[in-house]
Amino acid sequence: MDDPVLLTGAGGAVGEAILEGIGDAYEWKLMFHSPPAEEPSHEYLVGDVADDEDVAAAVEGVGAVIHLAGDPRPEAPWDSVLANNIDGTQKMYEAAVDEGVERFVYASSNHAVGAFETDRRTPEMYREEDDFLLDGSEFPRPGNLYGVSKATGEVLGRYYHDEHGIKVCNIRIGNLTRGHPPIDYERGQAMWLSYPDCAHIHECALEADYEFEIVYGISDNDRKYYSLDRAREVLGYRPQDNSAHFEGEDRVVEPDA
Amino acid sequence: MDDPVLLTGAGGAVGEAILEGIGDAYEWKLMFHSPPAEEPSHEYLVGDVADDEDVAAAVEGVGAVIHLAGDPRPEAPWDSVLANNIDGTQKMYEAAVDEGVERFVYASSNHAVGAFETDRRTPEMYREEDDFLLDGSEFPRPGNLYGVSKATGEVLGRYYHDEHGIKVCNIRIGNLTRGHPPIDYERGQAMWLSYPDCAHIHECALEADYEFEIVYGISDNDRKYYSLDRAREVLGYRPQDNSAHFEGEDRVVEPDA
Repeated sequence: MDDPVLLTGAGGAVGEAILEGIGDAYEWKLMFHSPPAEEPSHEYLVGDVADDEDVAAAVEGVGAVIHLAGDPRPEAPWDSVLANNIDGTQKMYEAAVDEGVERFVYASSNHAVGAFETDRRTPEMYREEDDFLLDGSEFPRPGNLYGVSKATGEVLGRYYHDEHGIKVCNIRIGNLTRGHPPIDYERGQAMWLSYPDCAHIHECALEADYEFEIVYGISDNDRKYYSLDRAREVLGYRPQDNSAHFEGEDRVVEPDA
Repeated sequence: MDDPVLLTGAGGAVGEAILEGIGDAYEWKLMFHSPPAEEPSHEYLVGDVADDEDVAAAVEGVGAVIHLAGDPRPEAPWDSVLANNIDGTQKMYEAAVDEGVERFVYASSNHAVGAFETDRRTPEMYREEDDFLLDGSEFPRPGNLYGVSKATGEVLGRYYHDEHGIKVCNIRIGNLTRGHPPIDYERGQAMWLSYPDCAHIHECALEADYEFEIVYGISDNDRKYYSLDRAREVLGYRPQDNSAHFEGEDRVVEPDA
């Protein structure tokens, strides 16, 4: 990737993990929704993903987009996810294909498939001995309207890939926490994504050869109900972390260790 | 179904086919976007599906919804399908679950999966000897932004079913024409839906026992690439028409015959 990479939603946790891990490996163009508290060490702009002019300025001259921007709250109301997540993602895709951007990495979410976690399946599906596994080919089952918006972003990517040829990688991001997995939260341990693995899977998505993919973005946890097969096979993803390594006596209990 | 059935988009061709076929079998409440040219023979209201008050008035007292309303143009621009199809469908679902409506029949479309018709597969997939078949479990591949909006409506239905228990039947409607199949248009013949079969599949969707379904709404055409298995098995759909019966010497050539 020689051209700059646009990173939208650069002020969020996923953006932080990416810049910490692979900030030196690319020329970045960061997009923030509101002015950053500290001066970024990369080129940046402040703008709204639902504003055509801001979006056109954001994609100008970039070779790839990592699109993280949107309302990140699982409990976000419909009007917000309709504008920020659905309309914002369509505008970003439209501008990207207009600009001739080569690839688009989209931050989807475990919430796009949260309703697979039925009362009948849980909590067993969060445990190592259970064999329920989602592989990314599923018709979405969102657990909330935020998840509906994320699934819609995947469908938009399918359309823009099929119609315009842009390479699209949707990463259904699990539970990202810095340092150690969520404590006393089996679901979060099953879908833990460490900061280094978050940066690594996005680097894979910027480098690998693919057309349209939906992969799960989690660490190599012993307990998981998301398959890593597609991420390993197509992206070359090699996660280094595993929430099981933080259990028992070795468990790290201090926050942000 | 003892309570009235709300039929939105009652002024369109699908609504016309339904009312011609099963107009006498139910107590209807029709919703039109603009005032109908002729006085309807059923209770009706005029309103906008993206208007909360209109939608609340529409669902009041009904036991089921057949939701056809929306911008029906395959080439419709994003802003229109975002407002009329995506936002309008969410508002209709939200109001329906608030009202305690039992089931929701959603007019999805062949355009939700139109991009499966790749250059490599066509025109062979439109012909009887080809074995390519979609069964409704596919991740959507819309061929246009209208198709994106229809796929999003399916995802919304999945969410409202999982979260609120409302029964949902998505019908991916093929090419509806009155009287005879499209002429000199293989794709349209493969996905033809006759007026009687259109009314019948909607009656099935009002009567059958199911939780969440995605079915294809086409006649029993010899040449087809949409499976009717789910519609037959779950809905009890028994189509009476077949586009192949209109070929050769028996072919009906006058419009609206």
